[in-house]
Formats: sequence, structure tokens, C-alpha cells
Amino acid sequence: MIFLNINIDKYKNLSRSLSREFINLNPIQRGGILPKEAKKAVYEYWDGYSVCDYCHGRLDEITYPPIKDFLEDIAQFLNMDLARPTHGAREGKFIVMHAICKEGDYVVLDKNAHYTSYVSAERAKLNVAEVGYEEEYPTFKINLEGYKEVVDNLEDKGKNVGLILLTHVDGEYGNLNNAEKVGKFAKNRGIPFLLNCAYTVGRMPVDGKKLKADFIVASGHKSMASSAPCGILAFSEEFSDKITKTSEKFPVKEVEMLGCTSRGLPIITLMASFPYIVERVKKWDEELKKTRYVVDELEKIGFKQLGIKPKEHDLIKFETPILDEIAKKDKRKGFFFYDELKKRGIGGIRAGVSKEVKMSVYGLEWDQVKYVVDSIKQIISLNK
Amino acid sequence: MIFLNINIDKYKNLSRSLSREFINLNPIQRGGILPKEAKKAVYEYWDGYSVCDYCHGRLDEITYPPIKDFLEDIAQFLNMDLARPTHGAREGKFIVMHAICKEGDYVVLDKNAHYTSYVSAERAKLNVAEVGYEEEYPTFKINLEGYKEVVDNLEDKGKNVGLILLTHVDGEYGNLNNAEKVGKFAKNRGIPFLLNCAYTVGRMPVDGKKLKADFIVASGHKSMASSAPCGILAFSEEFSDKITKTSEKFPVKEVEMLGCTSRGLPIITLMASFPYIVERVKKWDEELKKTRYVVDELEKIGFKQLGIKPKEHDLIKFETPILDEIAKKDKRKGFFFYDELKKRGIGGIRAGVSKEVKMSVYGLEWDQVKYVVDSIKQIISLNK
Repeated sequence: MIFLNINIDKYKNLSRSLSREFINLNPIQRGGILPKEAKKAVYEYWDGYSVCDYCHGRLDEITYPPIKDFLEDIAQFLNMDLARPTHGAREGKFIVMHAICKEGDYVVLDKNAHYTSYVSAERAKLNVAEVGYEEEYPTFKINLEGYKEVVDNLEDKGKNVGLILLTHVDGEYGNLNNAEKVGKFAKNRGIPFLLNCAYTVGRMPVDGKKLKADFIVASGHKSMASSAPCGILAFSEEFSDKITKTSEKFPVKEVEMLGCTSRGLPIITLMASFPYIVERVKKWDEELKKTRYVVDELEKIGFKQLGIKPKEHDLIKFETPILDEIAKKDKRKGFFFYDELKKRGIGGIRAGVSKEVKMSVYGLEWDQVKYVVDSIKQIISLNK
Repeated sequence: MIFLNINIDKYKNLSRSLSREFINLNPIQRGGILPKEAKKAVYEYWDGYSVCDYCHGRLDEITYPPIKDFLEDIAQFLNMDLARPTHGAREGKFIVMHAICKEGDYVVLDKNAHYTSYVSAERAKLNVAEVGYEEEYPTFKINLEGYKEVVDNLEDKGKNVGLILLTHVDGEYGNLNNAEKVGKFAKNRGIPFLLNCAYTVGRMPVDGKKLKADFIVASGHKSMASSAPCGILAFSEEFSDKITKTSEKFPVKEVEMLGCTSRGLPIITLMASFPYIVERVKKWDEELKKTRYVVDELEKIGFKQLGIKPKEHDLIKFETPILDEIAKKDKRKGFFFYDELKKRGIGGIRAGVSKEVKMSVYGLEWDQVKYVVDSIKQIISLNK
């Protein structure tokens, strides 16, 4: 008998202190808010292995709920041949690297790649070579021509490049890369090409074949209005054998999926949100207008947008010397901005940070966007 | 522009046709039903990356919601040194195998091991050697002494045994193994020992140190009253370096976790259900009484329980020649049983199967258990 020294009360009434009534500006959260259709589905499938009611051995072949259809439909939506559920974009990247590369191979990736691209390669025992910037500050724009140089250098040294990875839009500056350019180069050189679409699929239209992607990883929780964790790995027929290789002893089970991946509630929300996602990506231009409005207005009061201009994605990173100035004289220091926003019902800005601020107004109504801008202007003018 | 040929309506109003009012006898589902406390927490955290509100770089260190505390508490609950969240038991097994074994090593496991134990080894490029039965039909009891023989044989041939794996309770017969015996042997031989507790942790008390487990994998959705997919990997300090090894480039990120694993709604339900789990494992004896009652009563009408007797776990597998007899003359064939149960508000028995039936009454009230038994008796007597 184990004697437990646990204060069990802290697990009672778990609540999110970031109120549901708040306007949340956190870029990693704005694309993951559930529409009401998905919330309704949650009540149906929140119990454990409830997606398995009519399973005949494999998640991706379940017809009720319609997971099999969904995977075909989402492949079509992305203009890719095939798709599998995953626990998220990072797990998709690891599956690809582990399935198609050999230990010691190089993954050539952009310098703005998410940390999980590096960590996936490390876990798969691969090396990484970076493609750098065309310009560092202030745009931090990736030099896409650099892929050729980096690959050439590695091959000259007799190294094997197992994968080219590009971050479609990065999470630091929200820069959109011309994926087609890298896709063409990869195709030309016969190197598999993975496009990390964690910040694009579900927010904006993505056409895998046009971009010449062999693999697309997408994130349900980041950009497809789903509960975490879940995602999609879409791929071309050419790599199907390796990605969907089945077990020797259990021929129905796919090895890289460990049989089944996202076998529960999150994929239900992903499916229930799918009609909503199909519609919302059509409104991407309007989202860009909101984003550019925020940039234009806040640059008037001393914010400076980092990354490519004009914005081609909703994730905005600002340099904010004006906030830093105020922080120096405010007794709340860097926390004044977070604090003042909170008073106005706005959250999702990292507390205590005043030199640089990341935000997104993706999916907010225009009057909310204007309220955010006006609130920030007011905070600056009242405190400076 | 991709032209979509999708019938989007099928994703609207996703509902579970297995009604919530049904008594569900599916053994993979009975341990994963959410208590109301967990359902309440779902409303708070269903949006995408909502657990990340106050994250400073790593899921397992988040203090609000109290994930960090929870991992310490669940390690204590299992009497293990450390714990990490996972996407489920299989992902936990892969982490262990990938982190501590070398390619080509042998995993020695029991013949009743779940298919994911084999597939995890295959994905980690390991070999597998099986420990067989002390008796095949009807108990299918694993010969635990066989671990020594199998390990000796491999070592005699110069093979390296990287891991000993035992399925605490298997999903086929619901046989409980004497884990302590295997744990002592493993310790004695200096081979790491993983205990797969997908069917035990959360249902019955499990004391890792007593069982001499170096690793325990547990399943939130299968046995800890949580939404799928999530689980726990608990381990001893001795293996901490390998399991929690951090990235060279991103020193805060754990490589085998790809930074963060179960970063969303399922772990919230796991935490919210924790107080309930702590209490319910204390009532395990009562659950065994219910299980044995079902076996005793149904054996009276021609069912024959497979696996070890008397039952030491709620998962029951019956041989059912009586159902098979009826199926032969019923125009519904094997589906008559499923159909008749459904009429009586009982679900979770595989449709169309009449030779063998798996079921569990775990967590049902006594009057429900009796209703199930009486219903089955009635179905037999009315149809035979």
C-alpha cells in the first residue's frame, strides 16, 4: 500500500484563468479556437476510446465516425494523394524523417524552422544544415536560393541529403515563404520535400501539388480549429510505401503510426471543424487586411513590425521601443502592458515582455480588431 | 484554386451511435469513461493550445494548469521516481525502446503482449523474442520462468537483450501476471524492465517499486477515465538521463518527447480525473467480485471463461458454444446476440461474433451488472 502525500484538491475545478470572454491575441492559440459544431461533437466523443466503436483494426480505416472519408477529403483539400492523422506537426515530421531518411543523413532546413524540426531530426539521428537569411534584421527573410548552395556543399563533401524541409510560415516572424521555388529545386534534384504548414493549413489555402510538396504536415490545434493534440500528415503516392509500411507480424498495422495515432477526441474536433475550415480559408484576404490594419495603426505610435512587409500572414512580431520606455518608469516594469491589456479584456500577450511583442488578430471581428488597436493606443497615450 | 469534390455534410452533427444511455461492455472502453469533474474541465480547455497559456517552454513544467505537480503526484501514486505525459501506452513503449536500446537489440516479451509492443520494437529497429505459455488453452497463462530461458538462449548466442517487457494484464484474456517475479529476474540480470500497465494503472493499485519496474507505461483513455489519446510514462531515476535527454541546440527541450507530448485536452481530463482514479483503485476488490459473479452466472448457461481462474481482472473472454449453436439456426446468424443485447440497451460486444465474446462490467453498478447477466440469460433461453 502506497501512502500518498498528495493535495488532491488542486485537480478539482480545473479552470482556465484566461477567461473565455477575453480577446486572445496569442498567435499559437488564435487558429485553434473551436467553432460550435466541434464543441457539440466533443460531448459525443469525450470518453476514452470512443472513436473505436466500429473499428476493424485501424484508425485510418474507421468508417463511423467517418475518419476514412475525412482522410481522403483532407488529402483532396490539400491537393495531396494521401493523408494520415498524427498527434501534431512535429510528430508528422518525425514520422517522415524516421521513415525515409537513413541515420546520419542531412535534413536541409530554413533558419526560421520551428525547434521541433531540429528536435525531430535529432531524435531520428539525422544531421541538420541550415539555409540562412537573405536579410537578417528587420525582415529575417530566408534566402531560398540558399537551398541550392547548402545542398551542393553537402553533396560535394559526399554527404547524403535525405530531406529538404521548408517552414511555410514560421512562428517567429510570420514570414510566408515561396514554397513552390523550393519545391521545384527539390524535385529537380530528386530530394524529398517536406513543407511544414503548421501555421498555414487551416488558415489559408494550400495546394500541395502546386507547391511540389512530397509531404505536408499540418497542425489541428494550431491552425485547424481543433483541440490539441492532433494534426495531419499528407503525402504523395511516391512515398506511400515507406510512410505506410506495415508490420511484419501484424500486417494490418502501420509501423510508423504504431498502429493508430490520434485515436480520440482531438481528431473528432478536427473532423467536426472541417466544414468550417474549408470555408474560412476562403476569407484569407480579409484576414490579411485586418493584420495589415493592425500593423499600419500601431506603427503610427512607435511599434515597428519585424519580418517581411507587407504582412502575408496574421502572426505579427513588433519591436516595441515605446513599451520599453514606459516599462522603465512604470512601477509594474514590463508587466504594465499585460496588466493594462487585461483590464481591457485582452489577453495572450506574454507577460513582462516589453522589447518585442507577438500577436495575431486572426479570426476576430473587425470591431474587435479596432478595439484591440484603440486599446493599445490608449494604453500608450495614458502611460507614456 | 483546388476544386473540392467533398460531401461536407457528413461532418455535421457527428454523433456517437452507441447511445450514452447504453450499458457498454467493451473492455477497451469501460476504464475510459469520464467522471463529471473531467467533463467540466473539458469546457475550459477544448480550444487548441489552451494548456500553453502560462508555458515557459516545456509541457511537463507548466504550473498552471498544474501539470508539473500532477507528474510528481502520479509518480508518487505509482511509486516511481519520475513521470512524463505521453500520447498513450504505445508511445511510451516506443520512447523507452528508442531511448535505451541499440538497433538490433532484443526485447524479450510475453506471448500475450499487445500488438503495439511488437510494433514499437519494430519501429525502433529492435528484435523481439517471446516468452510462451505455461499452459495454452484454456488459461493461456504465461510461463514467467521462461524469461530466464529466453534471455539465457539469446545471451548464449551473443545477442544483446536491451529490454524485458511484461504485459501486466493482457487485452486478450485479462490475465494478471506476477510482475514482481519478472522484475526480480530483470534486476538480477541487470536488464531494464518495462511493465505495460495499460489495463491496470487507473483500475487497480500498482506499486512500481514493489514490482521492480524500471518503466511503467499507462493509458489515460484505456484505464484512467480520460479522453483519448494520452498516457503516462513513469520511470526510475536510473534511466532519467536517457529518457529525458535534452536537445543539443535547444537545451530545454527533451528529444524523445519532441519537446512536448500530450499538449492539450486529453491531459486535462487525465488530471481532472486523477482524484477519482485515486479513489476508485481502492475499490478493486469489489470490481473483481462483479467480474467473478458474471463468470459464475454465465458459466451456468454454457459460457466458458478463458484465461486464469478465478478472474483477477475485469476483462473477461468467454468461449460461447451456446451462442454459436443459436447463430447457426437464427436468420440473423452471429448478429443475433449483438442485436438482442441492443434491444435491451446493452452495447460494446463485437457484432457478428458468436464463438468467443469479450466483455467487462468494470465500474458498473451492481444492479447494472445483474441486469446484464439476466439479459444474457434471457436472450439464451428465448433463442435456444
